[in-house]
Amino acid sequence: MKHIKRILTAFVLVILMSCKENTSNSNEASSSDSTFVEANAIERIEPPNWWVGFKSDSLQLLVKHPNISDYTPSISYSGISIENVSKGNNSNNYLFINLKISEKTNAGRFNIKFKNDKDEELVATYELKERLKPAEDYIGFNSSDAIYLITPDRFVNGNATNDTPLGIEGSPKMLEQTISRSDDYARHGGDIVGVTKHVDYIYDLGFTAVWPQPLLTNDMHRGSYHGYAITDLYEIDPRFGTLQDYQELSETLNNKGMKLIMDQVANHCGLEHWWMKDLPFKDWVNHQDNFEKNRDNWNNSYTINSNHRRTTNQDIYASEADRKGNNEGWFVATMPDLNQRNPFMANYIIQNSIWWIETAQLGGIRQDTYPYPDKDFMSDWAGAIMNEYPNFSIVGEEWSYNPLLIGYWQEGANNKDGYDSNLRSTMDFAMQNLVVEGVKEQESWDKGLVKIYEGLANDFHYASPKDIMVFPDNHDMSRIFTQMEGDITNTKMAMATYATMPRIMQMYYGTEILMNDFEKPGDHGLIRTDFPGGWEGDAVNAFKGEGLSDAQKDMQDFIKKLFNYRKGSKAIHEGKTTHFAPFVGTYFLYRTLGDETVVLILNKNEDPITIDLNYQSEIGLKGKTLKNIITGETKLWGDVIELKSKGVTILTTKL
Amino acid sequence: MKHIKRILTAFVLVILMSCKENTSNSNEASSSDSTFVEANAIERIEPPNWWVGFKSDSLQLLVKHPNISDYTPSISYSGISIENVSKGNNSNNYLFINLKISEKTNAGRFNIKFKNDKDEELVATYELKERLKPAEDYIGFNSSDAIYLITPDRFVNGNATNDTPLGIEGSPKMLEQTISRSDDYARHGGDIVGVTKHVDYIYDLGFTAVWPQPLLTNDMHRGSYHGYAITDLYEIDPRFGTLQDYQELSETLNNKGMKLIMDQVANHCGLEHWWMKDLPFKDWVNHQDNFEKNRDNWNNSYTINSNHRRTTNQDIYASEADRKGNNEGWFVATMPDLNQRNPFMANYIIQNSIWWIETAQLGGIRQDTYPYPDKDFMSDWAGAIMNEYPNFSIVGEEWSYNPLLIGYWQEGANNKDGYDSNLRSTMDFAMQNLVVEGVKEQESWDKGLVKIYEGLANDFHYASPKDIMVFPDNHDMSRIFTQMEGDITNTKMAMATYATMPRIMQMYYGTEILMNDFEKPGDHGLIRTDFPGGWEGDAVNAFKGEGLSDAQKDMQDFIKKLFNYRKGSKAIHEGKTTHFAPFVGTYFLYRTLGDETVVLILNKNEDPITIDLNYQSEIGLKGKTLKNIITGETKLWGDVIELKSKGVTILTTKL
Repeated sequence: MKHIKRILTAFVLVILMSCKENTSNSNEASSSDSTFVEANAIERIEPPNWWVGFKSDSLQLLVKHPNISDYTPSISYSGISIENVSKGNNSNNYLFINLKISEKTNAGRFNIKFKNDKDEELVATYELKERLKPAEDYIGFNSSDAIYLITPDRFVNGNATNDTPLGIEGSPKMLEQTISRSDDYARHGGDIVGVTKHVDYIYDLGFTAVWPQPLLTNDMHRGSYHGYAITDLYEIDPRFGTLQDYQELSETLNNKGMKLIMDQVANHCGLEHWWMKDLPFKDWVNHQDNFEKNRDNWNNSYTINSNHRRTTNQDIYASEADRKGNNEGWFVATMPDLNQRNPFMANYIIQNSIWWIETAQLGGIRQDTYPYPDKDFMSDWAGAIMNEYPNFSIVGEEWSYNPLLIGYWQEGANNKDGYDSNLRSTMDFAMQNLVVEGVKEQESWDKGLVKIYEGLANDFHYASPKDIMVFPDNHDMSRIFTQMEGDITNTKMAMATYATMPRIMQMYYGTEILMNDFEKPGDHGLIRTDFPGGWEGDAVNAFKGEGLSDAQKDMQDFIKKLFNYRKGSKAIHEGKTTHFAPFVGTYFLYRTLGDETVVLILNKNEDPITIDLNYQSEIGLKGKTLKNIITGETKLWGDVIELKSKGVTILTTKL
Repeated sequence: MKHIKRILTAFVLVILMSCKENTSNSNEASSSDSTFVEANAIERIEPPNWWVGFKSDSLQLLVKHPNISDYTPSISYSGISIENVSKGNNSNNYLFINLKISEKTNAGRFNIKFKNDKDEELVATYELKERLKPAEDYIGFNSSDAIYLITPDRFVNGNATNDTPLGIEGSPKMLEQTISRSDDYARHGGDIVGVTKHVDYIYDLGFTAVWPQPLLTNDMHRGSYHGYAITDLYEIDPRFGTLQDYQELSETLNNKGMKLIMDQVANHCGLEHWWMKDLPFKDWVNHQDNFEKNRDNWNNSYTINSNHRRTTNQDIYASEADRKGNNEGWFVATMPDLNQRNPFMANYIIQNSIWWIETAQLGGIRQDTYPYPDKDFMSDWAGAIMNEYPNFSIVGEEWSYNPLLIGYWQEGANNKDGYDSNLRSTMDFAMQNLVVEGVKEQESWDKGLVKIYEGLANDFHYASPKDIMVFPDNHDMSRIFTQMEGDITNTKMAMATYATMPRIMQMYYGTEILMNDFEKPGDHGLIRTDFPGGWEGDAVNAFKGEGLSDAQKDMQDFIKKLFNYRKGSKAIHEGKTTHFAPFVGTYFLYRTLGDETVVLILNKNEDPITIDLNYQSEIGLKGKTLKNIITGETKLWGDVIELKSKGVTILTTKL
């Protein structure tokens, strides 16, 4: 029950019990709504609270309690009415209550009374809160943002007392028994407080938003550190901290003008999710009959896995079999595939997202495995959120190098099939890769810098290129320094290119100090290495610059200058883009807004080369003084520019 | 003058001269319009004739004659009026007369009289013809077609008397002095009559349309065999034959229900084009001033070549400098870049296309180097043609592997910039390449058959996938057998895939007998090898099957069966497409219309493999009998199918 108690405390859910057959226990219970009778508490009501003042006047309550389906609920509160009540078809222990909350409803608490035909009664108190700020003030990440992606278990261990899964005083016992920094796939102890304590570091680097991998409870037997196997969608994993810790992180960020982006997962949950023991509907998860048949010795061999054929979402020729194979298969055996075509599940997921936006004052959502859930639902989901928060942002993860698919998922795509995702941002794996190839490859007609040039040329297709998110690396791919095979010049060229192109920018924590995975390239556990200085006694402390190599310090300084410039650069955020086709191993990209012009020059030539600038006269820089944003040097823009050696030059007219 | 005489004969252009100052020469001349006074003929009027009954009532006549700009033209013919007359700004030897041809105008001849202020008079007779058939009856190539692409100089020498460029009796002297079958870049003597004589062969192979490379005069010093350096846009190259030969080819094809596709070039002409000696306007060709300045020692070093940055047509970030570099640069030094922004040039090109459609009863146009000319003009050009011939077809050549660009050029693309090409078909270099890679590559998650599967999945993006043209090879790329490194099984797999997918199909002549370029892969001269049997005395005669290897005969037979099936298959032409994601090295593609289902099975497994067909039950074939279109064997479709060895199987329900 410790588990339940924590929810009660955290979400101010007051549960009452009234039972006429058993009045001897508590006389007050039957006469007073304010009495707290924990022994007979209702197991779960979700969402644990709600708010007045949403555009949508509907609220679906999931009520879980032994035999609750035998009960009929009633509410007496001005503005609230029960529209309908549904039972699950797979369990007696659920009720789904649809409330209508009229526009004039006041914030406050009210009782939900449940009565069965034996006249037994249960009572739960539910709260509707006032909203903290107007819906329009939830400003999502946009092209002015640079996002710092963190694997929370691996960043900073800010609170050693919540590390152990074995249940030290006050902390719950979790299924995963191991905490070991020497095991790349075990928990290492990083947490929310660790991030909060280093918001200043992230701010000073020039980043404006933080995206931590999922922080919700992953009470799984193994490999739970990554966060994508959620077992409770309304709970912060106690090893990461508390809801309050999460709210404090958000507040700390907001106070510095930064945004907190939540990593959400609508496609699947963890196998140990509480509802997997007692599924409300026969179709709550996909391939549920198969799971329930093999539940007792469930393992990989029994799973009907996703075929991962994500193109079936668009393909007009895709077989129904393949389409279902993608959407309904399980991601892996330990991650049941949620069935968003069940309308109760659909409502549950939408409300869960809104609950977190409102509770944690979010500045955006990153949605995992975007092309796996039912795509019509995903459009409804994002639509419902954007309807409530018109200035919010959501980015969906589709790992595709195909601009057709990247473009398809962005709202306003004008897709032939009429599909509109309502998604402001998608992820640009195509450009991620093209920049790497473009910088690394030997120059030729169709290799090298032309890949960046022609990659950006594809922007003509996108509904809103600047709202697409680009990145050098993330938690699933080799670090950029590894992708660049340890070449620092190339790494800087790539970083500067990502940071100046018309995109939202995202970088993985530690890339600023050349973190890498050379030892086992692409190994997830290794990619997600502990940030040095995040643990007491670390020999190196990258926060303080202690013990870093010169190369690391140099890169950290480069990133700091680059992103701090980017932060204040309207030309990068919103400016006109002009670029010139690669020429003798160079590439020029211009971003211009008003008086500010930013010039990115990539040069592949090892030896000095002089470039005639008259070909680029349409930019109108001649006679202007430009400053190098890394070195601070200034120079007059003339007829030619001399580039001394291979590398990147970033110039600005803003002196 | 032989040159001029031929035009006069061919196009029934009668030219008269009336000169009051010089009546002593010919009294009849001044009194009768029907007198033929060749000595004083007007050098050129283009188009050489026109028709009544077009939707457009405008006609622009280019009149070229010494000092013609000093003359004022007049016409007296019911329904015809001169709207305006323009002079060139670079030469006195041109007039551009815009006629209005009212709806009620009758076909017939009329005189155009030219008078200068010295009262000198020139008279030309011009003809407006009746159209041979209704505009709607010009049916362009479509997905029911398989197109046989021919390099005319290299297919069949059907008339040896027109071979020599040195001017044997009755044939004109041309600039290129060499005819040598041992020189891959010289003329070999193939001609139009050669094609006409072998229409039956092409028909028997199962092809329904013929696309010969350009047949118009290329009176160039060197390398004129390919046809893309046109020096007279209204003349069949005499080494290929006569206009009558061309018309007879068309008639022969039409009589067999086949289509003649003309290869046209709006982007450039040959350096020896007659107007290059005397350019009418200062902006008739791009970079004209540069050309005229360096005319006397013109060579590659003086040319301002195209930068070939074709993405500038779409790229919203492209610099103006690059955009002009692509559109206004010359393709090569020997091919001046026509300036379609000059409205007289624009009209000239549009009318030239219409003239050929009407004169040669065309069944389609293939437009060369599509993304190089001014794209707004190209839209107007195709729009003007499609306006006159609503069922016609035009395919534009953009050599791009990027579906975004392929899709951009197709009419109905719903492009963000509002551009509509009016082009029914574009060329699918992307799919061409993906089939090759898909068949050749070792299977893995992202290699092999999945490339075909995901390539076709991109069709969701196209306005009309079935109107896009796919091909195993063409005159600019290695033969498919060479691309497949001599692997016959792979070649068959690729051929069958192209032929059954929802596309217009095109194949290069001789691919049916495994013609290849192993010796110098990709060498243009070698790719365009003489078709064996096309020249008297050839040791091998592929038309008769004499001297072919067993492998060649087998491939010829395979192609014959494949394309003859395709010819009658409504399922392939118009049917629903369904495919299944590659599975254990196999790929299944279904085409269905009514009772007909065609199944393409690609199998990469060398050893026998049994595939469970129940996964594909949605196709509904269970219990049906299917015939192998190559072997003729029939089999019942059951729960499984056994594939004995690597290769392609094509089955049909049409027994």
